[in-house]
Amino acid sequence: MPIQTENNPAFARIPPWVMTKLRPKAIETIQAVYDWVETECIPAEAVMKEQLAKDRWKTPALMHELRKKAKAKGLFNLFLPNHFKESPGLTNLEYSCCAEIMGRNYWAAQTMNCHAPETGNIELLAKYCTPEQKKKWLVPLMEGEMSSAYSMTEPDRASSDATQIGCSMRKEGNELVINGRKLYGNASWNDEMGIFILMGCTDPTNPSPWKRHTTVIVPSRSKGLTMKRNLTIMGYDWAPEGHGEYVYENVRVPLENIILGEGRAFEIAQGRLGPGRIHHCMRLIGQTERAYELALIRCIDPKKMPRGKHIGDFDSNIERIASMRLEIDAMRLVVLNAADVMDTHGNKAGRYAIAQSKILVPKVAAEIIDECMQLYGGQGLTQHTPLPEMWTYARFVRVADGPDAAHRHQVGRDQMKTAKSFEVRHREYMRRSKELARQYGTEDKSMDEDML
Amino acid sequence: MPIQTENNPAFARIPPWVMTKLRPKAIETIQAVYDWVETECIPAEAVMKEQLAKDRWKTPALMHELRKKAKAKGLFNLFLPNHFKESPGLTNLEYSCCAEIMGRNYWAAQTMNCHAPETGNIELLAKYCTPEQKKKWLVPLMEGEMSSAYSMTEPDRASSDATQIGCSMRKEGNELVINGRKLYGNASWNDEMGIFILMGCTDPTNPSPWKRHTTVIVPSRSKGLTMKRNLTIMGYDWAPEGHGEYVYENVRVPLENIILGEGRAFEIAQGRLGPGRIHHCMRLIGQTERAYELALIRCIDPKKMPRGKHIGDFDSNIERIASMRLEIDAMRLVVLNAADVMDTHGNKAGRYAIAQSKILVPKVAAEIIDECMQLYGGQGLTQHTPLPEMWTYARFVRVADGPDAAHRHQVGRDQMKTAKSFEVRHREYMRRSKELARQYGTEDKSMDEDML
Amino acid sequence: MPIQTENNPAFARIPPWVMTKLRPKAIETIQAVYDWVETECIPAEAVMKEQLAKDRWKTPALMHELRKKAKAKGLFNLFLPNHFKESPGLTNLEYSCCAEIMGRNYWAAQTMNCHAPETGNIELLAKYCTPEQKKKWLVPLMEGEMSSAYSMTEPDRASSDATQIGCSMRKEGNELVINGRKLYGNASWNDEMGIFILMGCTDPTNPSPWKRHTTVIVPSRSKGLTMKRNLTIMGYDWAPEGHGEYVYENVRVPLENIILGEGRAFEIAQGRLGPGRIHHCMRLIGQTERAYELALIRCIDPKKMPRGKHIGDFDSNIERIASMRLEIDAMRLVVLNAADVMDTHGNKAGRYAIAQSKILVPKVAAEIIDECMQLYGGQGLTQHTPLPEMWTYARFVRVADGPDAAHRHQVGRDQMKTAKSFEVRHREYMRRSKELARQYGTEDKSMDEDML
Amino acid sequence: MPIQTENNPAFARIPPWVMTKLRPKAIETIQAVYDWVETECIPAEAVMKEQLAKDRWKTPALMHELRKKAKAKGLFNLFLPNHFKESPGLTNLEYSCCAEIMGRNYWAAQTMNCHAPETGNIELLAKYCTPEQKKKWLVPLMEGEMSSAYSMTEPDRASSDATQIGCSMRKEGNELVINGRKLYGNASWNDEMGIFILMGCTDPTNPSPWKRHTTVIVPSRSKGLTMKRNLTIMGYDWAPEGHGEYVYENVRVPLENIILGEGRAFEIAQGRLGPGRIHHCMRLIGQTERAYELALIRCIDPKKMPRGKHIGDFDSNIERIASMRLEIDAMRLVVLNAADVMDTHGNKAGRYAIAQSKILVPKVAAEIIDECMQLYGGQGLTQHTPLPEMWTYARFVRVADGPDAAHRHQVGRDQMKTAKSFEVRHREYMRRSKELARQYGTEDKSMDEDML
Repeated sequence: MPIQTENNPAFARIPPWVMTKLRPKAIETIQAVYDWVETECIPAEAVMKEQLAKDRWKTPALMHELRKKAKAKGLFNLFLPNHFKESPGLTNLEYSCCAEIMGRNYWAAQTMNCHAPETGNIELLAKYCTPEQKKKWLVPLMEGEMSSAYSMTEPDRASSDATQIGCSMRKEGNELVINGRKLYGNASWNDEMGIFILMGCTDPTNPSPWKRHTTVIVPSRSKGLTMKRNLTIMGYDWAPEGHGEYVYENVRVPLENIILGEGRAFEIAQGRLGPGRIHHCMRLIGQTERAYELALIRCIDPKKMPRGKHIGDFDSNIERIASMRLEIDAMRLVVLNAADVMDTHGNKAGRYAIAQSKILVPKVAAEIIDECMQLYGGQGLTQHTPLPEMWTYARFVRVADGPDAAHRHQVGRDQMKTAKSFEVRHREYMRRSKELARQYGTEDKSMDEDML
Repeated sequence: MPIQTENNPAFARIPPWVMTKLRPKAIETIQAVYDWVETECIPAEAVMKEQLAKDRWKTPALMHELRKKAKAKGLFNLFLPNHFKESPGLTNLEYSCCAEIMGRNYWAAQTMNCHAPETGNIELLAKYCTPEQKKKWLVPLMEGEMSSAYSMTEPDRASSDATQIGCSMRKEGNELVINGRKLYGNASWNDEMGIFILMGCTDPTNPSPWKRHTTVIVPSRSKGLTMKRNLTIMGYDWAPEGHGEYVYENVRVPLENIILGEGRAFEIAQGRLGPGRIHHCMRLIGQTERAYELALIRCIDPKKMPRGKHIGDFDSNIERIASMRLEIDAMRLVVLNAADVMDTHGNKAGRYAIAQSKILVPKVAAEIIDECMQLYGGQGLTQHTPLPEMWTYARFVRVADGPDAAHRHQVGRDQMKTAKSFEVRHREYMRRSKELARQYGTEDKSMDEDML
Repeated sequence: MPIQTENNPAFARIPPWVMTKLRPKAIETIQAVYDWVETECIPAEAVMKEQLAKDRWKTPALMHELRKKAKAKGLFNLFLPNHFKESPGLTNLEYSCCAEIMGRNYWAAQTMNCHAPETGNIELLAKYCTPEQKKKWLVPLMEGEMSSAYSMTEPDRASSDATQIGCSMRKEGNELVINGRKLYGNASWNDEMGIFILMGCTDPTNPSPWKRHTTVIVPSRSKGLTMKRNLTIMGYDWAPEGHGEYVYENVRVPLENIILGEGRAFEIAQGRLGPGRIHHCMRLIGQTERAYELALIRCIDPKKMPRGKHIGDFDSNIERIASMRLEIDAMRLVVLNAADVMDTHGNKAGRYAIAQSKILVPKVAAEIIDECMQLYGGQGLTQHTPLPEMWTYARFVRVADGPDAAHRHQVGRDQMKTAKSFEVRHREYMRRSKELARQYGTEDKSMDEDML
Repeated sequence: MPIQTENNPAFARIPPWVMTKLRPKAIETIQAVYDWVETECIPAEAVMKEQLAKDRWKTPALMHELRKKAKAKGLFNLFLPNHFKESPGLTNLEYSCCAEIMGRNYWAAQTMNCHAPETGNIELLAKYCTPEQKKKWLVPLMEGEMSSAYSMTEPDRASSDATQIGCSMRKEGNELVINGRKLYGNASWNDEMGIFILMGCTDPTNPSPWKRHTTVIVPSRSKGLTMKRNLTIMGYDWAPEGHGEYVYENVRVPLENIILGEGRAFEIAQGRLGPGRIHHCMRLIGQTERAYELALIRCIDPKKMPRGKHIGDFDSNIERIASMRLEIDAMRLVVLNAADVMDTHGNKAGRYAIAQSKILVPKVAAEIIDECMQLYGGQGLTQHTPLPEMWTYARFVRVADGPDAAHRHQVGRDQMKTAKSFEVRHREYMRRSKELARQYGTEDKSMDEDML
């Protein structure tokens, strides 16, 4: 029996143009993801929190249990694009609808092995590894048997300019000897964290700044590799995955751990980005929807009636609710369009649309969640609501993969290149305009050179 | 030979999902509209302005010439929905792509008989008139032989609450005798302005406030009807159509001029809105694109190089340009989605999406155009650029059909009605959460009633 | 030798009009506070953090040491208004200059016994207590021998409407028996926390809703009083003071602990607010200045040079820095003016100016600190900078004493009351305008009733 | 009898710190200006408009009449600083209070000879002219017998970089021969416009770009000088002063018309700015107050009651009104502070505070007036209210004397220079922090170099 999508909350906010592009298989998957998140994830938030409270750097038993169950249901690695044989075959657009739903709960994506940085790392390994490398690292990641980290940012360099990466990788025999410091990369305090995909500098004097760097797999228990500190995000430890601050002191890895080849890190870095960024954005939208729903619930809370009216009876709040709704829905259109551009014309052509999502969505999401907190008054900032964690996630995405200003710069520079063609066309308008003025006998004013 | 849409400026900013929905016929029409606007309208702006300067309340000869030419090319009444036999058969989505292009020049829509208020009026007459009425008023409007006005707003009432409309229409024999004052409605100083579609009150004591009002056709030269003043918009007279301030003193019209029947004005008012609002929005987007292109042209102007750099070399301006580009494109997605919702589910289902366009687009458009003016420095505010007129049009759309706050209210009130269902679902989360806590032995804290 | 205030960082941003109002004694105190914060507090931040890490709910030894030292230097209770004999005699304006400096370090105010909620509590006790009560509670607070909490907000009521407070206080013999739940109020997990100043309901059926409530002192170790949970703020525990969630189960306190008298809680609540709110605001400004300085330091960081330029060489950042500077300085003027209004016309007359600070400052401060974080990229959100804690404090102040919307409402309602007088004056303009029109023979247009 | 300032609308929004600085003479003047504006100017707006409608480029008879009357009352040239013997002796702060009141009516300043560009021009001539020059040009300006223009901007150069000014001034005998084009400068179509103060290039090859330019007086009826067009501002002609677009073709003026000396134009340009900018800002504040009052009047308009409530009963509007009130008052503090800084430390020291006013005030003013228009719905954009003209004036001030971005740049660059001192201090904090860590035995973490 086909799934009824009308009046079905799993499909409630999917625009018609997207609905017509969803294949039956995708509709089934969206429904399954929705059911999974609603019944297995959201109600388990409190238990997950309690389990985690006992040992912050150990993946909770419940997470393992849920991952096993999701895998059994076929809800695993859904993000994997079509060209993989293990792929469930969803398009970016179809997967985006799933990702929004996953975003309703912070860790739901993880139960389905669809969380960052695994998604990006799995794609990277699948795309660039040899069969031997795949067997060793890709298979366990896809099976959910270990987790991985991506390690690029350094404390002493401008992260938005990757050519400056300085972490030294010296060849010695059939080994690379690594020295340097890295920020971010998931916490190796969690013993499921198996490997780092590390970007470092093997050839600092190569004349091309794009050929100096190499990507290599570093097992997380390597000698000489230390996690000094958990990097908190707005005070949250983000455990049990978290972010780490790392020191590499003469860490040795075999040359066979190099991915794609020496000096080819930039090829890999280019390929890694793309879909991952809009996954974050779709999850943010799902999360923002949930914040919005909590705001609505507050609006009709019978316990909270200042001056005898529901909070939702104040028309200032009615307007606020409307503004939030309108903005979230606009943002969804932006991200779904980016997914569709990638499906239609490829990731490269999608670069602009991805940047559009990356720049607009986290900012709007953070603003809306902030407004939701404000509707909860003092309580909104406390652990009585999940809003503070939601806000922090949105704020984090605003700097993840580079602050938005860096992306705006890139977009702006590309746009400036289009100016010339408009100027040429404008001059043609002016030429023709003068011709017409002569023809119609309207005076050609002497200072018209200033008029546009 | 099919039209090549790639690298074709007529299609440059149409998203892929829309491209796949455009039928060959629509692609041809979009191309034809583009060619028309680029070659016949934009270069003729200066001539049109000069002709108009000579007699501000007379439609310029050039406008008549262009209308005749556009009609001959079949570029007339393009907005007309499918169910009319004269309709060119474009969907709302397809027409929206045309409307954006029309918006690049303020009066291009008029050359194609696709301008407000004709579009709304033609739809209204087509929908509710008898064959006799159609022959008398609809045909000349569609043929472009006269123009019309819609007259509803009154100086003494809250315009956003139409039940308060007070203009008196007393039946006397087979005539209505009209007394009252109206704001807006195109200027009858232009002698092509043939009729007013007037909303007034025929039955002030009817118990239902929705049945007191009647819509009637009033010929613009009726005795007792005076245009007191041209209502300027931010100082612009908006000639030769403009807005008028009217007094009705014992104006008599035959009962046969009543549309649909006495007391049925609200049925008509409901039907009138809809597509027209997003036409405005798409034209605004086209206009904003042109403002944006002018900003880019300024960015590479070799005459304007403060401290030796092009304005576009300053990275504050690079970021500004990027922000504008991103916002315009997001707004286009919003409006195209609204068009698609109407195509898929009808105008009524599209109410929310239309409101979304109506609320978001004019504000963003005005902000972007304002920023473009600022990039031109002092010159940006003068007649050296078309930017001040563009801004004024965007600002006007923010209040046309009611100020945005009124629309936000409507959206917000509708949203508040959804709160209950979320609250029910939330309670179910809580119930299940407690169950799981018992099952997993995580303590059920005593004050959990406060936790969401 | 008088203090040289020119080119002296302690006075660098004090506007001239304030400088002329600072008495020599105040100038000395400001300098002393500056030296104290710069040499004893800011450099001790790391040590304080480490000491606190060991036992989160115990006031660190270093804090005790610094408090003792500050007290010895006479830098204690500086906030105390003139009419106290122990007062150092600073005006609100003078103290505001001190408070800004204190705000540069989160806990500096505490070293000087000038921190919330002590300041408000001390004023309250000083104003309303009997000599016996003062001896018991005020003296130890002023001596810094214990700390106190203010407890008003309840989970089940709209906090912005205090007449709804429900916490039951039943008289039994010469005791009050208290039952209810409270949010906020400093954490009694810290064993220096000695008393709660509690607002509850003694007379729920009193016809006047302003006479139902009573304020009473509750010792923090009272039987039946439990702190269930630390209420985190955006995830921070805010230890070792923190916020608590409390349950009162048949807590008994002697009637002699009642302040001012039964049913007089609203008199007390009114009196409590005022100066305290602008202290928060001035500290926020000091904190924002420090965030701003960190942003400037980042701007010239030689390690962070994307595309070979300092971050501060990008003119987008130059404009950002300028905007921050301009906004902070505008906010300082707002708060200093509020302090001056209170000095000149009293706290009551200052209500509007206090609300102005309360509404504008926390929002601007949070926005600026957020921008500073963004300039630090990913690092800005981590514990590598104090910015996340600073942002959280600013965000918290936006809801402390009620969300800003509640205050805007109050201001707006007061303003609406002024409308009538403007309308009267406007009608006088119109009357005189008509007179002049007659006199000068300019036509009096018939529809002028619509013209303003 | 001294003037009662309490409950006196002329003093209602002057902050206490300013009140205490107003001398009795200033209080009298403020009251006189208030009475003048309220009784002679605002009620005369309609008559002035009608007179002007008849001949747009002729100063209305009513203006002459009012100027004569104001002069007789001693309300003339009030802006003139103390060091002039004709000065009424007001400080910048005192005059600012007058200027706010003048701003309530667009042309009130002109009745008192306190309007731009006269104020700036009079100061310039007074400061730099020889006694002969003063007699010829300064005296008639101060007597109100002619008007003047300042002419600097050129269409072919970046106006924000005055070193690029290209207008050629060639010496020939005892004359300068001028060729070039200029934008702005009041309209010479008004025959009272007597002189241009023109900045042009006399020595284009001088090695110092600051010594190439010269300022000279050009009589407006000079041969070869043509006003080609009135430059409209957002469509308004701003008559009868307006802005002109000028061509100089071999215009000859005697060398004795040079001010201060050849090559000294930049000295003069520096001196010209300053107080004038904040006059604009204070007038804008006065104008914004009036817009705000109109918004309040709309809020209680009994004719405008959507859904049966006054517009001012909607709490979204209550919040809007509050926000406007708070922002206007904050802006006033900014401008008054700038005036006080100039009074206390001189114009040069006031550069930052002036820029602060210039950048913040026009933007806030335009936003508030825009909001006021929105409260009036469609009517707000028409000539039924003065709001559109008010908005346009505020928008204009945002680009007058250079767009705000240029000023932000200047402020930002100055701020960047302060970064080093903060960095030095920060390093001292770090040094001392390490010392303390050793002393207190808290571990000195290995990666502390990243911690701020």
